[in-house]
Amino acid sequence: MSSDRVIIFDTTLRDGEQSPGISLNTGEKLEIAQQLARLGVDVIEAGFPIASPGDFEAVQAIARQVEGPVIAGLARVHVGDIDAAYGAVRDAERPRIHTFVSTSDIHIQHQLASTREDVKGQARAAVAHARSLVDDVEFSPMDATRSDVEYTAEVVQIALDEGATTINIPDTVGYAMPQEYAAFLGRLYELVPGLRDAVLSVHCHDDLGLAVANSFAGLQAGARQVECAINGIGERAGNASLEEIVMLLHTRAADVAGLHTGVNTREIARTSRLISRLTGYAVQPNKAVVGRNAFAHESGIHQDGVLKERSTYEIMDATTVGLEANSLVLGKHSGRHALKSALEELGYDVSGQTLNTAFKRFKEIADKKKQVTAMDLEALVTDELRDDMRSYTLEWFDVEASTRRPPHATVELRTPDGEVARGDFTGDGPVDAIFRAINAATKREARLREFRIDSVTGGQDALGEASVVLELAGQSAAGQGVSTDIIEAAALAYVRALSNCERRVLAAADTPPVVAAEAELTPTP
Amino acid sequence: MSSDRVIIFDTTLRDGEQSPGISLNTGEKLEIAQQLARLGVDVIEAGFPIASPGDFEAVQAIARQVEGPVIAGLARVHVGDIDAAYGAVRDAERPRIHTFVSTSDIHIQHQLASTREDVKGQARAAVAHARSLVDDVEFSPMDATRSDVEYTAEVVQIALDEGATTINIPDTVGYAMPQEYAAFLGRLYELVPGLRDAVLSVHCHDDLGLAVANSFAGLQAGARQVECAINGIGERAGNASLEEIVMLLHTRAADVAGLHTGVNTREIARTSRLISRLTGYAVQPNKAVVGRNAFAHESGIHQDGVLKERSTYEIMDATTVGLEANSLVLGKHSGRHALKSALEELGYDVSGQTLNTAFKRFKEIADKKKQVTAMDLEALVTDELRDDMRSYTLEWFDVEASTRRPPHATVELRTPDGEVARGDFTGDGPVDAIFRAINAATKREARLREFRIDSVTGGQDALGEASVVLELAGQSAAGQGVSTDIIEAAALAYVRALSNCERRVLAAADTPPVVAAEAELTPTP
Repeated sequence: MSSDRVIIFDTTLRDGEQSPGISLNTGEKLEIAQQLARLGVDVIEAGFPIASPGDFEAVQAIARQVEGPVIAGLARVHVGDIDAAYGAVRDAERPRIHTFVSTSDIHIQHQLASTREDVKGQARAAVAHARSLVDDVEFSPMDATRSDVEYTAEVVQIALDEGATTINIPDTVGYAMPQEYAAFLGRLYELVPGLRDAVLSVHCHDDLGLAVANSFAGLQAGARQVECAINGIGERAGNASLEEIVMLLHTRAADVAGLHTGVNTREIARTSRLISRLTGYAVQPNKAVVGRNAFAHESGIHQDGVLKERSTYEIMDATTVGLEANSLVLGKHSGRHALKSALEELGYDVSGQTLNTAFKRFKEIADKKKQVTAMDLEALVTDELRDDMRSYTLEWFDVEASTRRPPHATVELRTPDGEVARGDFTGDGPVDAIFRAINAATKREARLREFRIDSVTGGQDALGEASVVLELAGQSAAGQGVSTDIIEAAALAYVRALSNCERRVLAAADTPPVVAAEAELTPTP
Repeated sequence: MSSDRVIIFDTTLRDGEQSPGISLNTGEKLEIAQQLARLGVDVIEAGFPIASPGDFEAVQAIARQVEGPVIAGLARVHVGDIDAAYGAVRDAERPRIHTFVSTSDIHIQHQLASTREDVKGQARAAVAHARSLVDDVEFSPMDATRSDVEYTAEVVQIALDEGATTINIPDTVGYAMPQEYAAFLGRLYELVPGLRDAVLSVHCHDDLGLAVANSFAGLQAGARQVECAINGIGERAGNASLEEIVMLLHTRAADVAGLHTGVNTREIARTSRLISRLTGYAVQPNKAVVGRNAFAHESGIHQDGVLKERSTYEIMDATTVGLEANSLVLGKHSGRHALKSALEELGYDVSGQTLNTAFKRFKEIADKKKQVTAMDLEALVTDELRDDMRSYTLEWFDVEASTRRPPHATVELRTPDGEVARGDFTGDGPVDAIFRAINAATKREARLREFRIDSVTGGQDALGEASVVLELAGQSAAGQGVSTDIIEAAALAYVRALSNCERRVLAAADTPPVVAAEAELTPTP
């Protein structure tokens, strides 16, 4: 790689997936990882394998099946963490172990109840152990930006001595300012000359709205890896947005001293939609690069004859991020073969029963909607992926809603064991009624924590996409549903969220409680 | 003011309101302006008076009724624009005229079809004319960051010579990088020494995710006014977020050389919710400061006994931005007086018929929902504000939805003229059916452009808030509706959007077509 090539380290599946209410299953994580490979990221941080058996399984599946990017697993400085990370990533073409420990006094004292000397020893042992297992080891002094820089330098020196190949400097709490962050990195280079022979990495949170600016300042100070996430998701205000960093370097290519990435920008819009759909995390209209308005002008200056020169008001071209690559259209007369070809064009290799299900759903939609676009197909396929696991199935429902009497719902489900269950309820609204009817049918006391409906595409016959977050027996999980009927979309989402909750409850029962509690309580970079 | 006091210039009602699909009426703009005054902003840019009679009326109402902040009106360099801006703001305690013209060659050539010399003359005449009307005149060389700095300096010198008191340097297309922007401002100071005696202002767009960082770099370079918007709304990816800039200076107060604002941070969360509700623009969960997750940690480290020291993982306190000020709770037994007091506590002075309507709606909600919180009340009051204008009213509806037959809706409305209209429709989904039934009742061919439902508060009995954007006869407008029944919320939102559309269609018919087209096509800083 040339000296100004920036490594894009995507942490959507690790830091992003830690956002409240996101609960991706292995199939969904695999689909995201495949899309990240298509996008051309250099490293996929696929998860935190010690955190749960589900995390381990997903990281392992990605390591085994996703080609191209380095596959990284996160680990604390404990031997058990590192062994779990190794077990999960070892089958990857190019595996990486990413281990971390806090270096700020506030964390050492309050979180670790440890000492600076002890942390040095732990870092040394962890990197040495990881390096005995894989060649590619990344080390992060967590909360670095609130740490004493001299002490951090000592810890970094130790990590390098033990063979760490990448040193990541996280702004864990999103506290840094650009010049300050650049100065911190500059001082580290002075104190640890050997850092010039490793890859320096940045990992910035957006609590003060500066994640992208801090990451960029880090690159200008010499860093050559950026840790970022699609749509900027992640703990609290999230991580630096992958799409913003990439499009900044792309758009200002002539003015950033050659800094560039290997990302295929035309896959950005589609990746953003996939993440938004699978996590249930909407992107606000005014989000840079991927928001609905990012390329829209209210004032109508796009009209013919007015906009003589596109660059007058646009610094980026919508096609560059793949926004106008959406010409593929199917209709009600399109056959199975056309659907299969269209899906292949979108990168989905669908066959057998999955193709049958997708075709059936496609026909249902095509009956109601004149044109089925690539975005509709993405939503459908994503939706169908969710049904390959132990779960409830919605058979049918009836709902009556009126301003003149309370709404009533009747619903029939099939349980994971194949039995038929029916329930009914009179609620505050039709959605409330159907949700409670599902609770009645399943005899579960799930509590609704969040509910949202978005339209997938514009227009009168748009597909509605419902997102539900439920809480059941202390576990929370999300579910999504897609339909032209929003009540049906809501019911599908509820049933899926309930299924996800139940799997979480079962998984929690399988995990030794001490390990689960400890891993769940682990703060990460 | 001390030399490190930063002037907060809020452009939510001008640049923010130009976002596609936002259509605020005068009552809504007034409510936002009142809340901005409560938040403690220094300047409210209330609109672009020449753009439409509705814009003029709203700026005038704000100038007459909102006390505290400077009230600014935007104007191109034309006499007609400046006279309109003056007419709208003249009754304010402290009026400001903000006039602008492009200085980049690409704009001068392609947008203005003019020359550098001519632009200088226009700027000179405009500032002189504005200064003859008011003492407080702001001048913006539009697209400054893509302009030749020497030429920009000449234009700025002219504006100062003619008496401009604030010079704003817009990054109109969101192209700048922090160091570059600071260097541009630094060079302007060198070329125009008199700039030190005026207020230098920054106005940054977020197309590359750098609006806040660029604004901050501008302050460090000597600017003392920041133009920003609540939730970062505005053209394309929007403006710098007011809340991020303010909380950056607040949180890093010890490290920003005394830079500070006069904003009451405890009003931030409420202002954000109000803007989100009235514009229909959702805030993404991972948005800094005001996103749902900004203060949330997935890992449960907030549990008692684990988080020994709050600052371990939080750099801001949720109460500082007013997020936990939500203790006010009413129930079904609360009376009219309690409601009035609660509303007053929230800053709403409600009496007479409005109080009656609010109380009736409150009782309906309280019947279905155990606890009515401050956030519910905000939503209700905001909702009721919309009904004071010429509009359709929803009388009742019946909807049947089922997986086993097509959904059917019947609806009865009252027209603006007081007549009863009924319609029914069999649609693709219950919402589709009710929307089309409304079209049938009103004999209007409105097209649905966007539709979304969010829950206002968490939990099973949450209020649902629907947002609809419609297009009718070339005009588009938004409407919102709130109810525990999402079908009802959707129907209310549709009816309001339709009413707003009709008002826009009527207003467009009243406006001379040449002026309307020209103003609508005007790009702004």
